[in-house]
Amino acid sequence: MNGLILMAHGARDPGWSAPLEASAARCQALLPGWAVAMAYLEFMQPDLMDCGRTLVARGCTEVAVLPLFLGAGGHVRKDLPAQIQALREAYPAVQWQLHAAVGESPRVIEAMAQAALDVAGLAPANPETPPA
Amino acid sequence: MNGLILMAHGARDPGWSAPLEASAARCQALLPGWAVAMAYLEFMQPDLMDCGRTLVARGCTEVAVLPLFLGAGGHVRKDLPAQIQALREAYPAVQWQLHAAVGESPRVIEAMAQAALDVAGLAPANPETPPA
Repeated sequence: MNGLILMAHGARDPGWSAPLEASAARCQALLPGWAVAMAYLEFMQPDLMDCGRTLVARGCTEVAVLPLFLGAGGHVRKDLPAQIQALREAYPAVQWQLHAAVGESPRVIEAMAQAALDVAGLAPANPETPPA
Repeated sequence: MNGLILMAHGARDPGWSAPLEASAARCQALLPGWAVAMAYLEFMQPDLMDCGRTLVARGCTEVAVLPLFLGAGGHVRKDLPAQIQALREAYPAVQWQLHAAVGESPRVIEAMAQAALDVAGLAPANPETPPA
């Protein structure tokens, strides 16, 4: 079985992950034969090691890790490769592949621009100057 | 003139913002009559106040602020409203509107799921380019 881990930053606010979980649910619907799971770097559970362990227990022999980050900073360039290396050492029979940050996908760049158009569409075409 | 500020977190790595700047450039192309600008919460410049000041100087009387955050945690729920309030107090003749985090847009949720399909090596569910 193939696995896909959507790896997000995490936040203290439990509602933060709702859109990411929605994206994961959509992925699972689009990839019915795959094991799709979320993991978090900070504040939320599971972390990448726990998530990877679960997928291995489910029989995954190849796991793709997609960072749900808008840009590639220290987390994506340093923290995630180190965690992937730890998974490779813990489960050397499994192929672990770390991919580029999702925010670098032209699909996501375009979707953000289109979402901005939605926002722009909410503004009046000829805004009046509000009273001082 | 209408303004649109794309408000991102920022990072120490100067390359982090490249996809966000690409999205902003796409926005500007889609909204030729608008002043589109980026602002950052941490690590990068300009901050929201400086960015807002620039848009006011360019003649904006209504400014939409779209948080380029994947989820709504403390930054979106607390820090940004406080900064918007500071803008309203500094420039009360300008309308400042804070929108929901871009990650909550169904467009972005779907684009992230489609990007995961790319990673999985599978054809997108709704390919933009029909097969030859």
